[in-house]
Amino acid sequence: MQYPKPFARLVAELAKLPGVGTKTAQRLAFHVLRLPDQEAEALASAITEAKRTLRYCSVCGNLTDQDPCEICSDPRRDHGLICVVESSQDVMAVERLNEYHGLYHVLNGVISPMEGVGPADINIRSLIQRLQRDDSVREVILATNPNIEGEATAMYIARLLKPAGIKVSRIAHGLPVGGELEYADEMTLLKAMEGRTEL
Amino acid sequence: MQYPKPFARLVAELAKLPGVGTKTAQRLAFHVLRLPDQEAEALASAITEAKRTLRYCSVCGNLTDQDPCEICSDPRRDHGLICVVESSQDVMAVERLNEYHGLYHVLNGVISPMEGVGPADINIRSLIQRLQRDDSVREVILATNPNIEGEATAMYIARLLKPAGIKVSRIAHGLPVGGELEYADEMTLLKAMEGRTEL
Repeated sequence: MQYPKPFARLVAELAKLPGVGTKTAQRLAFHVLRLPDQEAEALASAITEAKRTLRYCSVCGNLTDQDPCEICSDPRRDHGLICVVESSQDVMAVERLNEYHGLYHVLNGVISPMEGVGPADINIRSLIQRLQRDDSVREVILATNPNIEGEATAMYIARLLKPAGIKVSRIAHGLPVGGELEYADEMTLLKAMEGRTEL
Repeated sequence: MQYPKPFARLVAELAKLPGVGTKTAQRLAFHVLRLPDQEAEALASAITEAKRTLRYCSVCGNLTDQDPCEICSDPRRDHGLICVVESSQDVMAVERLNEYHGLYHVLNGVISPMEGVGPADINIRSLIQRLQRDDSVREVILATNPNIEGEATAMYIARLLKPAGIKVSRIAHGLPVGGELEYADEMTLLKAMEGRTEL
């Protein structure tokens, strides 16, 4: 005897999620079945809605449901400062500090030859174009992760921007090397922002 | 700045799943956003479909998309034998043995005064009614979990069935095959000693 098909299908779909094996997928599936219809529907429609409405900002590449995003279109923010990060999660991490009031540029990836990701595969070109369009930018802060790929990406971008005479800085190695920005505690991240050095 | 609403909503829905905290929910949500539309839709519709089509078998309480379920309606199985388990997962565990060919009765729960679950809240009454309807049942095997709640539930059911003259058995307690005596807890070891069989 096998599990009924709709159940097996749900388990198979859930098991595709990162970090979810078959056992966990079964546990999640049984949980979903025990939910009131309404709550299960809420989960299903949240997935559909998120896919339908969420975009990447055409200016900075951040996750958004309006274009340009909330940050890019906020006149109170310092439009002379751009913080370059790998992902929208990293934007949220910096935002939680309540200390940085500039704009962002989300690469949505990182240069990684090992995984076949080159400079053309992430939002570097849109950063260059953005800087060419807007000469009011005083400084670009490179806040990619302090691991090998993040460092390489920062170096690559720094080399591209330096000739244009734009001030380029790198967040300090207050972060543990090999760690990930998303999981840094706020104090460490703040120190790293303050201790940024010009490249 | 907050995450866009549809994203926050997806994270909130995912975080309701058992064992999924906010961080994991965010990771899952970003994963969903990176999926091709088609695959995200497959996940959403698998949830909806599973909720729409899956039922509990009106005879045995097992999870099914047909009623009576595949097992109850299989004439090749031994309808004189009923194995009582706590959940559909347990049915699958016994089925994997490929050794048991009787029917099941799924309690969908276990008596647990601590969590306010009494005999009336699980499928005990339907078991009694099933046995009253069908006098061809030779034996009821109680295969609830070997923990306090499972034992109590087994004892409760055994006391109900004994006066009716039905043979009631309980799966054996003992050391797991491949386990080590040194690491067994005292209760298990005691049960293993008590349940020793002559060679």
